[in-house]
Amino acid sequence: MNNMQSLNSVLNYVDQNLDVSIQKLFELLRIPSISTQPIHAEDCRKAANWLKEDLQSIGFKASLREVKWAKPGHPMVLAHSDQSSAKPHVLFYGHYDVQPTDPDHLWGTPPFDPVLKESVSGHKVIIARGASDDKGQVMTFLEACRAWKAVNGSLPVNVSILLEGEEESGGENLLPFLKENADELLSDVVLVCDTAMADRVTPGITTSLRGMVTQEVTIQCASHDLHSGIYGNAAANPIAILCHILASLRDIDGRVTLPNFYDGIIEPSSETRDQWKKIFPSDENLLSEAGLSVAAGEKGYTAIEQTWCRPSCEINGISGGYEGDGFKTVLPAKASAKVSFRLVPGQNPALIEKSFRDHVTSLLPKDAKVEFKSFGASEGFAVSRESKYLAPALNALTEEWGVKAATIGSGGSIPVAGEVREALGLDTLLIGFAQADDRIHSPNEQYGVESFHKGIRSWVRILAALAEA
Amino acid sequence: MNNMQSLNSVLNYVDQNLDVSIQKLFELLRIPSISTQPIHAEDCRKAANWLKEDLQSIGFKASLREVKWAKPGHPMVLAHSDQSSAKPHVLFYGHYDVQPTDPDHLWGTPPFDPVLKESVSGHKVIIARGASDDKGQVMTFLEACRAWKAVNGSLPVNVSILLEGEEESGGENLLPFLKENADELLSDVVLVCDTAMADRVTPGITTSLRGMVTQEVTIQCASHDLHSGIYGNAAANPIAILCHILASLRDIDGRVTLPNFYDGIIEPSSETRDQWKKIFPSDENLLSEAGLSVAAGEKGYTAIEQTWCRPSCEINGISGGYEGDGFKTVLPAKASAKVSFRLVPGQNPALIEKSFRDHVTSLLPKDAKVEFKSFGASEGFAVSRESKYLAPALNALTEEWGVKAATIGSGGSIPVAGEVREALGLDTLLIGFAQADDRIHSPNEQYGVESFHKGIRSWVRILAALAEA
Repeated sequence: MNNMQSLNSVLNYVDQNLDVSIQKLFELLRIPSISTQPIHAEDCRKAANWLKEDLQSIGFKASLREVKWAKPGHPMVLAHSDQSSAKPHVLFYGHYDVQPTDPDHLWGTPPFDPVLKESVSGHKVIIARGASDDKGQVMTFLEACRAWKAVNGSLPVNVSILLEGEEESGGENLLPFLKENADELLSDVVLVCDTAMADRVTPGITTSLRGMVTQEVTIQCASHDLHSGIYGNAAANPIAILCHILASLRDIDGRVTLPNFYDGIIEPSSETRDQWKKIFPSDENLLSEAGLSVAAGEKGYTAIEQTWCRPSCEINGISGGYEGDGFKTVLPAKASAKVSFRLVPGQNPALIEKSFRDHVTSLLPKDAKVEFKSFGASEGFAVSRESKYLAPALNALTEEWGVKAATIGSGGSIPVAGEVREALGLDTLLIGFAQADDRIHSPNEQYGVESFHKGIRSWVRILAALAEA
Repeated sequence: MNNMQSLNSVLNYVDQNLDVSIQKLFELLRIPSISTQPIHAEDCRKAANWLKEDLQSIGFKASLREVKWAKPGHPMVLAHSDQSSAKPHVLFYGHYDVQPTDPDHLWGTPPFDPVLKESVSGHKVIIARGASDDKGQVMTFLEACRAWKAVNGSLPVNVSILLEGEEESGGENLLPFLKENADELLSDVVLVCDTAMADRVTPGITTSLRGMVTQEVTIQCASHDLHSGIYGNAAANPIAILCHILASLRDIDGRVTLPNFYDGIIEPSSETRDQWKKIFPSDENLLSEAGLSVAAGEKGYTAIEQTWCRPSCEINGISGGYEGDGFKTVLPAKASAKVSFRLVPGQNPALIEKSFRDHVTSLLPKDAKVEFKSFGASEGFAVSRESKYLAPALNALTEEWGVKAATIGSGGSIPVAGEVREALGLDTLLIGFAQADDRIHSPNEQYGVESFHKGIRSWVRILAALAEA
């Protein structure tokens, strides 16, 4: 067989075995590997073991690696194919842990009992927690490897696979793990499957990511909860103070008011903006799935620009006083909020954290105290346009999907990209097949069967293309 | 015996029998009559029966009266002394039900096992749930009646006593009960013992109460929770919108910004303000027990004025997004808050509710929807200064305590005052002996032995004084 023949045979194998591949994914989805909940620690290990055995069944040398630097300590799965010095070497990264399922009553089917269903838009989808983020995406790569091995007996490139179990719970063990195992992990390029397509029909490689600063802020006034009849008006109310402070974080144009917040940011090129404008002619292209119609952020930028290349300030949670049914006339002692800033390349997380804390502290009235907690910070990330692996991967995607693949941004943070650059000095290609309506982190998470099927086929082609790079 | 001699004999009787009176109160405190918890329904009835029998032992015709208009349906205790057409007729109101005891682990002794203890401030106190609110206060009146009957064979005025079992659980049966039994309850003035003294040494009659408007406001933007990476910046954030709206409810001087909010309010006289200033020379007199130092409300008013005669706007609860430990980068679909306005006489609850809803709605950006819930509304209440019973009662208190009795306000709401005016057309004198540190509704509720003892003596004098009014 020549290369093209063997590629077609592998793609055929993928098509013939799609049902088996879906059943494999279902097995993995049935394991409730919620990494942030200690009660699911054993389930996380179970998912890791399942993946180890599955990788061994493909022919990888796979093992669990304990992590020891930070809690919660769910093991890494690390696997290597047979290595040939003539071939490029890729390191694939994914994660087997998932988000919590709450609010549970909004799920139409149990979150860990995956089902195939026709979605409202008429697409066949797999519904389960982790279907898209990230078990379904991880399995696109594993199934592509299995197909190559089944048809060809070997992979077109040397492949190492690293699967993390703490991506959804801080992932603090990843960077030290990468550093300690740098020799074993060293390769030519990193591949990650944890991102979305440009839109439903356009494949994309994500070349910029937002970093993040996360802060919990707690305001305390009185020493204990007070009766609002006796004290109401005269006693400082921490909820009111918190609302006042949070309302001051953006101006009327949606711009973040912290001093020097926008320093160092590189504006997207007009070429990039034009490319995005073609894919998303209107803000509703992004927002309508969420039931929204207008971009609510920084004036002068489209919804896509606001999420792909502009920093954000969001309140992710707020809590204080009586939150149950009915009414209780309490004047609470404390109130707290979780605030996050998504950062783009050029912004300094440490400076922004300090600037936020200074701002909050400057607005505290007498009798109010504040406490801050940080839940990690990371810089924004941009893939080098010089990487020799970028063009072949874009071409492979264009061939599979029949639509020119785009370079896109992502509003989310994928810490691994920055961390492999720091620990291993490697570039990362972020190639994913998720859709905007996958409801990741929400009830009724789904992954399109088309994403899964053509995702596997895409990796089959990309592995072949990278062998020639 | 002349009148003065018989008054002194009754006061002596009170002093001699204080220990017996405390033991009687302890018996009542041992009954866990928590009205809001169905499991304690039989205990509520037990407390009602105990009071009925105690009133019969004093010589009252006492009976239980079933209530039927709303749940939970704990009986009223209604009692009448022998009636003489030559005497004025007073109707005493109190309640025998108590608040729940949670959080139980903060109690130093079991809540329904009353004990005598020396408090940190060196005062002897009775510790138990209901010691102050309202069993201890109710028993001051009953013990005063017992002393008059024991010494004199009769009471100086005709007395009816109504004891409710649902004051702490909504009290929805009270108004219909008053209306249905108006003939039987009709009297010259209502006496209530459910309020506090002006301060530790100054007796007071509460002549104004705040009413209340309670609102729950829920803002919804997206149709479901979103990932803040994918949508952050571009999708409307209901927590941010809610904070912006709530922060707009007061201006920089702490004044409520709703249009016409302060219309109709009567400023306290400079005489009243001076009187209060003497009792509370500094804001810390009110606030230090709460760990606070400065009045946080409307500029130009002291802490006491802010709570006793100025309306408030408080956020009693707020909730949205992720509120658990750690961090979740959710961009929630909904956020909600509980907001209450304490009203003073002259303000119209219905207009203020409408004004609040209009204000919130006017600030909603595109893509945001709002829902409101109301949890009841009531007007502020002021005792008529014309009441001929006010001056004699103030004089009696002044004589007992040796400090000039004050007319004071209360920041809270005591629905019975408005309801007896509505149902019976009667004025109410709110005379109580509680202290600010009684911890009503909280763990380790206490009632000073001095409050109890001099409370009984105060009623002995007041009954005599009202006979002359």
